[in-house]
Amino acid sequence: MESIAKKAKDASRRCKILNADDRNKAVDSLVNQLQLEKSVILIENQRDLERANNLNQALLSRLDISKKYDSMVQGIKDVRDLEDPVGKIFLHRKLDHDLTLYRTSSPLGVILVIFEARPEVIANISALAIKSGNAVILKGGNESQLSLAAMTTTIRTALKQTKIPLDAVQLVSDRDEVAGLLREDKYIDLVIPRGSKNLVQYVKENTRIPVLGHADGLCSIYIHEDADVSMASKVVIDAKTDYPAACNAVETLIIHRSFLPNFGTVAKALDDLSVSLRCDAASLEATTGCKDIIVASLEDYETEFLNLTLAVKTVDSLAEAIDHINCYGSGHTDCILTQSAPAAEIFMNGVDSAGTYWNCSTRFADGFRYGFGAEVGISTNKIHARGPVGLEGLLTYQYRLLGNGNVAHDYTAGTRQYLHQDCHPKNKCN
Amino acid sequence: MESIAKKAKDASRRCKILNADDRNKAVDSLVNQLQLEKSVILIENQRDLERANNLNQALLSRLDISKKYDSMVQGIKDVRDLEDPVGKIFLHRKLDHDLTLYRTSSPLGVILVIFEARPEVIANISALAIKSGNAVILKGGNESQLSLAAMTTTIRTALKQTKIPLDAVQLVSDRDEVAGLLREDKYIDLVIPRGSKNLVQYVKENTRIPVLGHADGLCSIYIHEDADVSMASKVVIDAKTDYPAACNAVETLIIHRSFLPNFGTVAKALDDLSVSLRCDAASLEATTGCKDIIVASLEDYETEFLNLTLAVKTVDSLAEAIDHINCYGSGHTDCILTQSAPAAEIFMNGVDSAGTYWNCSTRFADGFRYGFGAEVGISTNKIHARGPVGLEGLLTYQYRLLGNGNVAHDYTAGTRQYLHQDCHPKNKCN
Repeated sequence: MESIAKKAKDASRRCKILNADDRNKAVDSLVNQLQLEKSVILIENQRDLERANNLNQALLSRLDISKKYDSMVQGIKDVRDLEDPVGKIFLHRKLDHDLTLYRTSSPLGVILVIFEARPEVIANISALAIKSGNAVILKGGNESQLSLAAMTTTIRTALKQTKIPLDAVQLVSDRDEVAGLLREDKYIDLVIPRGSKNLVQYVKENTRIPVLGHADGLCSIYIHEDADVSMASKVVIDAKTDYPAACNAVETLIIHRSFLPNFGTVAKALDDLSVSLRCDAASLEATTGCKDIIVASLEDYETEFLNLTLAVKTVDSLAEAIDHINCYGSGHTDCILTQSAPAAEIFMNGVDSAGTYWNCSTRFADGFRYGFGAEVGISTNKIHARGPVGLEGLLTYQYRLLGNGNVAHDYTAGTRQYLHQDCHPKNKCN
Repeated sequence: MESIAKKAKDASRRCKILNADDRNKAVDSLVNQLQLEKSVILIENQRDLERANNLNQALLSRLDISKKYDSMVQGIKDVRDLEDPVGKIFLHRKLDHDLTLYRTSSPLGVILVIFEARPEVIANISALAIKSGNAVILKGGNESQLSLAAMTTTIRTALKQTKIPLDAVQLVSDRDEVAGLLREDKYIDLVIPRGSKNLVQYVKENTRIPVLGHADGLCSIYIHEDADVSMASKVVIDAKTDYPAACNAVETLIIHRSFLPNFGTVAKALDDLSVSLRCDAASLEATTGCKDIIVASLEDYETEFLNLTLAVKTVDSLAEAIDHINCYGSGHTDCILTQSAPAAEIFMNGVDSAGTYWNCSTRFADGFRYGFGAEVGISTNKIHARGPVGLEGLLTYQYRLLGNGNVAHDYTAGTRQYLHQDCHPKNKCN
């Protein structure tokens, strides 16, 4: 295992010194080669599909890349056109007239990406890694083995024509290899698991390498006492029904007791769209005419349903709503519906989640919707990257200090004084 | 253990919703109370000193806070006067005309700080935690038990007069408690170990909580072929002798073979200051008249001496120097001495350390010298915080999305289009 991880680290160090032009050319080469070898890759993908006759329809359609191929290639072109993320200046400060400090973005190093189904992830992640000067080790699902092997060959052929070392993109196919790689914290800088809750939890529990991801997306919407009823129906319907399997779909609806007289309207609108409601006693009593409504168990408030089920909880105050979310939520995205700016402010300050929303659907929690141009994942960590993560999730920073023979002793002795004068950061370091 | 950690988390949630004025008033109260109870605390400190007769002189002087007391209080006043770190806006983007995204700084939550000797750390860290809206759990060394207990009482008395909950600052004194706390990743968001390499390594190996710190500070200076000889002597002397026990002191000197004819001058200057040189064959041969110079072992290049010893290694190229640093260094701070800007650029791009310096002493790697106003620690992690870490190391960020009943489906269906228009971030969110 060390040899794969070590090869990746060596490759990452070679990538780190390449300039934006070299990295962009490599992404271009990736686009060309994926276009050239489309038919070869689709044949292998077809063979995966034939082997996978025991999968359900949803998994089969994720595995089938024939319809997604062109948009996958377009996605890589979009990554190519993103602003160069490396060498951006976040701080530019004169410590003295001849001693200048920069804080600049730099590649993380080696990223291990573990994903399930969806073979197109490999091309997307490879492009993101190359664009940002990193090396990547990829592990996909067994069901897409042939597709992944074909795409890896294509990617490596593309890299041969560029300055990027081949080992900047490596594929591992054995599940046991993953366990070994998760121990290589000396060489691997970040793990990104993309897939089921079980996968993410397995990874988090079995490595000291920082993990970017989220095991749960237990999002809540809190309807404050003064919320507009039609807005409440509209936002909750979108958050629950637009794509119930998404991590940013709402799972728990919290209602201020004073809003209960209006809850029937919201509940009926949800019921009409086949949403199954799991209510506490007070909210259950406030509804009439719903077809699919039962008493909630405590477990319902801890459940990420990922389907058309919604838990409903009544609270007596804004503070109780915030406490419920901080206790039962997963720190992903939570929303308040209210006409009161002070109430919204208290909610957004008090809820300890990556996203705290006011009067809009939780479904906006997404890198593309945020305008990041790419999404590496969504993180419920507080460290490194939080919420929807764009290309910056693959970067760290370094301090550069440029002097003229300066020594610290002069400043301690008082011969020289620190200036600590901030300059306006230009876009790029020189 | 859970109860301490859970109490801290509850306190952190109450701190999170306080405003800057409340937090500053609490820091003021801390200053007042520490001034009021100075004599009580110094008596307890004296008792610690009397108990600690088996400690060496260096440790005793770190334990004795009588001379450091006033500057400790001044340090807290300085923290009080720092710009409010909470609620800073890093991104302000209109996703649509009535849908606005902010990315704002927010407190991390609960910080566990484990430190050795130096009891004044407790006051400093408590002030930093309160200023930044966090709760803190503190574990100090057994030798400073009485000082710490007295200071904690003072701090909690100070908090009683403010809106900060008492449990925002908790002290644990039992070593076994630390092991328990390191498992509380549900409640504790960051661990900061401040002390020996063994302490930091123990913490890193025994927790899933993110750790901010550095086990090693193996810094190198590379003298390129064209380096100015007098600058080389001056910078290397400062980096080695200014404070040899510091993590930012230089431990390995790397010399380009073409510089060897000048190395004798540098070596002599170091020898005159009682620096012990451990040289490879080529560099050894280039020196004459040094009193304390021997052949280096491989181990010397892996050693953080923390005293007046310096390993010396000859290389044939800039690339070899970079490889040596990436292989043997600790990712802390490394410097190139050269007159060539292109060589400096290659070095600073290629070396994968928190700080990459050009023509200045590694001793500048320090939060105060960088102008951060406070130093939480120095990190050799690539994740969260890297290099010298100021108050921002105690913060994370949250996304806030402010809408008007917006739903994601409208944008998928094409009824509405994303605007993604960046606004110029103001200093504070409203």
